[in-house]
Amino acid sequence: MRHGESQANRDNIFTGWSDVALTQKGVAQAHSAGKVIAATGIQFTDVHTSFLKRAIITTNIVLDEIGQNYIAEHKSWRLNERHYGGLRGKNKLAVKDQVGAKQLKIWRRSFTVVPPRLTKRDEDPRYDRYGVKIPLAESLEMTMDRLIPYWVDQIAPQLLGGKNQLIVAHGSTLRALIKFLENVSDDEIPNIEVPNGKPIKYEFDDRLNIIRKEFMTK
Amino acid sequence: MRHGESQANRDNIFTGWSDVALTQKGVAQAHSAGKVIAATGIQFTDVHTSFLKRAIITTNIVLDEIGQNYIAEHKSWRLNERHYGGLRGKNKLAVKDQVGAKQLKIWRRSFTVVPPRLTKRDEDPRYDRYGVKIPLAESLEMTMDRLIPYWVDQIAPQLLGGKNQLIVAHGSTLRALIKFLENVSDDEIPNIEVPNGKPIKYEFDDRLNIIRKEFMTK
Repeated sequence: MRHGESQANRDNIFTGWSDVALTQKGVAQAHSAGKVIAATGIQFTDVHTSFLKRAIITTNIVLDEIGQNYIAEHKSWRLNERHYGGLRGKNKLAVKDQVGAKQLKIWRRSFTVVPPRLTKRDEDPRYDRYGVKIPLAESLEMTMDRLIPYWVDQIAPQLLGGKNQLIVAHGSTLRALIKFLENVSDDEIPNIEVPNGKPIKYEFDDRLNIIRKEFMTK
Repeated sequence: MRHGESQANRDNIFTGWSDVALTQKGVAQAHSAGKVIAATGIQFTDVHTSFLKRAIITTNIVLDEIGQNYIAEHKSWRLNERHYGGLRGKNKLAVKDQVGAKQLKIWRRSFTVVPPRLTKRDEDPRYDRYGVKIPLAESLEMTMDRLIPYWVDQIAPQLLGGKNQLIVAHGSTLRALIKFLENVSDDEIPNIEVPNGKPIKYEFDDRLNIIRKEFMTK
């Protein structure tokens, strides 16, 4: 699932690796998603989330709602939102006024196009201590390239062991994951959207082929 | 630090491995402790807590207050509160009326005495999946015996690597840890109390001898 509405979602601002809080609506969405998941009775062994608090706080709320606070929680920069480079902090409508709707859509939804790169790499101890080079900007493809090793190494083996895994991440990382899991073509991926706080349930066979995909609702 | 006030703390009830929520006061204590820690500017790499939500929710609140939601969070049954066996769920004053103040104090504060054992082991998937045999009851000594391997294997090596570690646990596990770290005698340990939501800061030398101990306050 994607985190609940953030302040940047509300204000229609490009965010990426900036660490913004949930809105009250986002908190409510997280509680609501937790109740929806609780109703399924699914027992998880692990939850995977990013280094960003909009995802972590959503995770905390969901775990409390499902009565599974105690499961192992793994945070990884690989699940972080796509880095929007020079678009970060900019209002999407203002960018549209500046460059036109077509260019905005390309930056937002294309698979390969990289947004304008920052000229200087950000410093942030949370990444430095893992030796992570914070990107100057990422295309969805670059996001997918750093996300999929996490799926392959940390999530897939658990699923193959029969253990249900919860992932709480971001719009673009989840689009990338869906592209990978469902073999969505580069041309089709611009049409895939992942709404805030609406869990999607996948069931896999023992080779991780998808048996069933379901949008979880009350 | 010990978790904020739980419903069982408020109601003066033996709890142990029962999973009770924080009270509103407990939530406020967690926020307050987080602000106290934030004021020190300490940067942690890891937080260690138990499988019990009064400690986990306290952890979540503290991490948010100190702006370090992203640090690695490790949950272990080894940090769980002491298992109070047959005393679990009983009001401490009622037990005192039944067995007298002296026996109550022995059960609560002695190092070696085991409270009345349960006759049947609890079932709980959160422990079963790790192959953990839920105790029928624990003395403080038994608690210490299952706690210290976690300190030695998971916490001490990180400290020796110069990484600050946050521990959010329970009254008896923290008494056991203090006994271990400070070489408190069996006779003295009954006098050690750890209040809810009041962080204690230890500084160690490069052999983990204590250089400084400080009760953190505003």
